[in-house]
Amino acid sequence: MESCAFSEADVTIACAREGLQGVSDDTRKSLIKFCNSCGAAVTRRIPEGDTLERAVCDACGTIHYQNPKIVVGCLPVHGERILICKRAIEPRYGLWTLPAGFMENNETAAEGAAREALEEANARVAIEDLYTVYSIPHISQVYMMFRAKLLDTDFSPGIESLEVKLVTADEIPWDQLAFAMVKRTLEAYLEDRKRGVFVPRFGDIRPPQR
Amino acid sequence: MESCAFSEADVTIACAREGLQGVSDDTRKSLIKFCNSCGAAVTRRIPEGDTLERAVCDACGTIHYQNPKIVVGCLPVHGERILICKRAIEPRYGLWTLPAGFMENNETAAEGAAREALEEANARVAIEDLYTVYSIPHISQVYMMFRAKLLDTDFSPGIESLEVKLVTADEIPWDQLAFAMVKRTLEAYLEDRKRGVFVPRFGDIRPPQR
Repeated sequence: MESCAFSEADVTIACAREGLQGVSDDTRKSLIKFCNSCGAAVTRRIPEGDTLERAVCDACGTIHYQNPKIVVGCLPVHGERILICKRAIEPRYGLWTLPAGFMENNETAAEGAAREALEEANARVAIEDLYTVYSIPHISQVYMMFRAKLLDTDFSPGIESLEVKLVTADEIPWDQLAFAMVKRTLEAYLEDRKRGVFVPRFGDIRPPQR
Repeated sequence: MESCAFSEADVTIACAREGLQGVSDDTRKSLIKFCNSCGAAVTRRIPEGDTLERAVCDACGTIHYQNPKIVVGCLPVHGERILICKRAIEPRYGLWTLPAGFMENNETAAEGAAREALEEANARVAIEDLYTVYSIPHISQVYMMFRAKLLDTDFSPGIESLEVKLVTADEIPWDQLAFAMVKRTLEAYLEDRKRGVFVPRFGDIRPPQR
């Protein structure tokens, strides 16, 4: 239940607050100072044969790589309606999202997406196709959202949700959505449903221009 | 140039060698013993509100999450031919692969795929659609492979490659491919090219049955 999903707007706001404009959220949050293998202080340099600066332990030789994280989620559908969750956590407390969260080690993306639906909405889903994939480079995250069938309507808010409900296309709270990827995934889905063909989308989400 | 791409067979072999059958490669390699924020020894427990055991620092409160890594790559095409690389590094030294490697922070998946083609094959590519996505849960990796156009034929082996060449469908060394994801991506591509329609694929790659 690692919290997830900083939107580009959140990062802008958070960085401005801390006087860190231009520093990515990822860089700001996860500066490695000590070796997690031997506990010695690390130095930052480009290892031999590499092209990027890493936290390197000169005591035991460990190189600490930091890589993007995957957020997996789904768009659970029941008849004409879509399951959405009102966030009980920051960022974007009180706004609406699709069930999603950080993928864990030793699971598949589809397993992670189903797990998140269960954790956030106590919802049992059958995961279908991978539907949208968005890179969000300034926060070093990649979103993978699946289409899914909601298997029953016995859902309820998980610990990270204030409210969970099924909405028709007309009932989607467009001005109260938590993240750009939620908006884009819902827009794509409604467009494709109208045409009767679901076409996977991939793309990037960039920070708003200042 | 972080090395990448353990195939399921590699992990089986490596684990058998070290008497670690059943332990995932990821677990084996990246056990956190010290806090990378303050240097204190960590304990492994389930943090409050979480469901999985994490390395937790009781001195400064940092929770050390470990999540799957993304490998990005591409299938660079020039006319009828496909660019492949012979590996100059372990695992799978001397076998053939498509250019791919770990995605870095602050880049998009497509940018990472283009960077890897440049690093491994000194090849300039125009990245097209996301084509195959495979979860490999026992090594906690997700592969994202793009279709790509090779922009010129002025390529050459990068530091991680022994040889780089363009091959026709008939010239693909099927019994000398480094990874299952390479085989599946090439098979999908050739099948789709015959039909004239490229359909993105996603799925899982599991360890071989013992």
